[in-house]
Amino acid sequence: MSDAKITQISAKDIDAWDFEVDVVVAGYGIAGVSAAIEAARAGAEVLVLERSAGSGGAASMSGGFIYLGGGTPLQKALGFHDTTENMKAFMKAALGPGTDEQKIEVYCDESVDHYNWLVDAGVTFKESYWDQPGWEPPYDDGLMYSGGENAAPFSSSIPPAPRGHVPQMSEKKTGEQGGGYMLMKPLVETAEKLGVHAEYDIRVQSLIIDAEGRVVGVASKRYGKDVYVKARRGVVLAMGSFAYNEEMVRANAPRILGRPAASIEAHDGKAIQMAQSLGAETAHMDATEVAFFCDPQLLVRGVLINARGQRYITEDTYAGRIGQATLFHQDNQAFLIIDEAAFEEASKSESSTPELLLQPTWVGETVEDLESEIGLPAGTLQSTVDLYNRYAAEGSDPLLGKNPRWVKPLGTPIAAIDLRGRTGGFTLGGLRTDTDSRVLHVSGKPIPGLFAAGRCTSGVCAGGYASGTSLGDGSFFGRRAGISAARENNDVLVSVAVQRNSN
Amino acid sequence: MSDAKITQISAKDIDAWDFEVDVVVAGYGIAGVSAAIEAARAGAEVLVLERSAGSGGAASMSGGFIYLGGGTPLQKALGFHDTTENMKAFMKAALGPGTDEQKIEVYCDESVDHYNWLVDAGVTFKESYWDQPGWEPPYDDGLMYSGGENAAPFSSSIPPAPRGHVPQMSEKKTGEQGGGYMLMKPLVETAEKLGVHAEYDIRVQSLIIDAEGRVVGVASKRYGKDVYVKARRGVVLAMGSFAYNEEMVRANAPRILGRPAASIEAHDGKAIQMAQSLGAETAHMDATEVAFFCDPQLLVRGVLINARGQRYITEDTYAGRIGQATLFHQDNQAFLIIDEAAFEEASKSESSTPELLLQPTWVGETVEDLESEIGLPAGTLQSTVDLYNRYAAEGSDPLLGKNPRWVKPLGTPIAAIDLRGRTGGFTLGGLRTDTDSRVLHVSGKPIPGLFAAGRCTSGVCAGGYASGTSLGDGSFFGRRAGISAARENNDVLVSVAVQRNSN
Repeated sequence: MSDAKITQISAKDIDAWDFEVDVVVAGYGIAGVSAAIEAARAGAEVLVLERSAGSGGAASMSGGFIYLGGGTPLQKALGFHDTTENMKAFMKAALGPGTDEQKIEVYCDESVDHYNWLVDAGVTFKESYWDQPGWEPPYDDGLMYSGGENAAPFSSSIPPAPRGHVPQMSEKKTGEQGGGYMLMKPLVETAEKLGVHAEYDIRVQSLIIDAEGRVVGVASKRYGKDVYVKARRGVVLAMGSFAYNEEMVRANAPRILGRPAASIEAHDGKAIQMAQSLGAETAHMDATEVAFFCDPQLLVRGVLINARGQRYITEDTYAGRIGQATLFHQDNQAFLIIDEAAFEEASKSESSTPELLLQPTWVGETVEDLESEIGLPAGTLQSTVDLYNRYAAEGSDPLLGKNPRWVKPLGTPIAAIDLRGRTGGFTLGGLRTDTDSRVLHVSGKPIPGLFAAGRCTSGVCAGGYASGTSLGDGSFFGRRAGISAARENNDVLVSVAVQRNSN
Repeated sequence: MSDAKITQISAKDIDAWDFEVDVVVAGYGIAGVSAAIEAARAGAEVLVLERSAGSGGAASMSGGFIYLGGGTPLQKALGFHDTTENMKAFMKAALGPGTDEQKIEVYCDESVDHYNWLVDAGVTFKESYWDQPGWEPPYDDGLMYSGGENAAPFSSSIPPAPRGHVPQMSEKKTGEQGGGYMLMKPLVETAEKLGVHAEYDIRVQSLIIDAEGRVVGVASKRYGKDVYVKARRGVVLAMGSFAYNEEMVRANAPRILGRPAASIEAHDGKAIQMAQSLGAETAHMDATEVAFFCDPQLLVRGVLINARGQRYITEDTYAGRIGQATLFHQDNQAFLIIDEAAFEEASKSESSTPELLLQPTWVGETVEDLESEIGLPAGTLQSTVDLYNRYAAEGSDPLLGKNPRWVKPLGTPIAAIDLRGRTGGFTLGGLRTDTDSRVLHVSGKPIPGLFAAGRCTSGVCAGGYASGTSLGDGSFFGRRAGISAARENNDVLVSVAVQRNSN
């Protein structure tokens, strides 16, 4: 059975099981730990299989944002009014086109509950709001805008509220003690207290099905040796994205090819393929989060242009939106135009991120000089700056709606920062699951015994992204995966006509 | 077995076969007929199952373009120099990102052969070149540019040649006698002469597999009755795109949702799902062709702007590229700015297409007036027009590289045509196949007995499109599907470790 990778295996071919539990969870990142906790609380014996030497996954290395709203205790304590309806409206508008509306509905309806669940499990959110543009709060603040809610085009039609909830780290981020670490640590401890057992250095390779086509376990490898794990009730796939599977990226999300970011090598897409070998459906395999490697403190103070010298997105929105706009719609070509005074101000800001404080690539005494330095046709940048300055003098930006707080005429000397190719990211597409985290077959019916959550599934994001939605839906639907998998007879409601493997 | 749709079926559950042949071809459009011809020529007994009452598919209603090059007899007769290398370079540049390079290689290497094959099968290409911008030649000309080869940004780096080969229709297109009809008619006649049998009004629903997981037939429905068809050698799926499967479009290509075009209702994605139920891999499910419903005779004479009043693509490129740029990158927002003289000229052109000759939505005595009529912020359109006119006076367009043939300063009175939402199209993503048209499992290995071609597969297009590439790869890889399926022991080379259904 050594050639069994990605292909399903028949239970009758298994001579002996190495482990046997109620619920097997594959992957010990945010989705896996959330599933494990809920399955254990539901009374199931749970075994987590983790490919690396420890728990945490990509989540523990991330900023730890969880996208929550609708009036969480933290939002309320900090004086922000939010409603479930506003949260839904924003997510549907900003994370599409093509969002899974049922997922967004339930995600928002239960967002306050989910906040409380995290807090109950030991995650701490400090009652402190970070009001500066940036990827992450540099200190231990618990709340910030993380999706562009307070920027055009959303802020005028959907009442904004910050929804990026950040687990409290030590006062200033140091090494591994970031928000993601402080998210995963208490959750893993909670799981352990509940009796969840974990096996490390073990790679899940294939799903094992019984004669009726129900998933009843997994085949895995540990140091080259086969390990068979029986799941009496269900298997939860929580193995992360396919950002590090070059072939899958080329075939599905080629724009991100060669630029994985905020993901780990374990994100090889195998969970997706294992389920696909059973006929699982996928969704939005082209979707990606896109990081933009430039300090938002610079962005808000400048004017961002494309390769034609034109502005294309308001500079004060969520930097991940700017990254997507640049990579998807501007062919990864961008320049930031910023005058000397604004550059100095950003450089001196306590809110800046040193490694993202890029230096000017070109400097000009006039816009005309700079235009020529960049290699733009004469007049292109000039007309962009003229139009911007015409309105900036009165503090407005009718073209893109930048917040007056950041609108100021561009002066001289003036510089350009070359931002071409400064993007990276991870994939958002994956298995299509229902709101109970059941993996759906292309027939539309759940595959019995198989559940999934996190970045091996398509979650609340279809086209867009906001920081915290990935850990957010990973934890939220991870919990649901654990609950569903732990339920006895969890396929009673499943009426799928299983023709496969019935010979 | 009435609930068997989209799910695979075991051969041992079939009591009696209604038909039994060597090769079963599902779908009688361009890919199906090409497969049928080659399978029959290879000595196989062939049965085509077609869901509608007659042959033709979407192909017969199309313009009939086949994208061919590298020096076809037609190109040579009309004085155009083309090379296989230039054709490859263009296709890789224009149809990506993420193109299947192996497919493009073999497609280009054998393009002249494929032209000759079509001619041998009775397809006629008139030795006449149509040199006007437009979607299709209005007369019976056999060759035109159909992908933007002769426009920026490609024309300066890749020697252009027209590669849109159009089957000769009656002198002026009338009713059904278009290029697509004149493509399908001789091909179907050729198939019939070779003894290919077709059954109509029959809907293929599921694949039938044997105990080793090999595809050995299809289950279908005719007037509500089950019809089982055994394929001794292979099954070829040629059932078209998923443009009419709303759920699949929403989950994979949401930008095209609600705007199918150049496709037919039979394009329900079922071939893709049937193969997926066996673990087939898909590719580029987000990719779509995009039609732009505006006469290119108007486009080339105007200046195309987005919702910010900015130009974004040269107006003289292939109109499908403009459609993609508009739908994918400009949120389906576009306006054509055209002065009275240019509008009159386009309207009177013999090359115009009456139903696409849109009337002005707004007219202004000055650009300032027009800008205000459209609702653009003051100065936005003005600066775009000023910059365009500055260079147009000397016949150049450094911003986007429009051909001097079409560059002329915009005068007054001046009009805008509202092009928001004037797009439609069909899906280009689908099953991942190899260059022998074998359907690939997610393990990377072919699924024994299963072949596919046409728009239920991902072909030579990943992100971009050129007219003729869809009928082009449908016919080219359709032939290869037929050849592969007809081969006896066609899975001898297939080493797939079939674990499924071995219980």
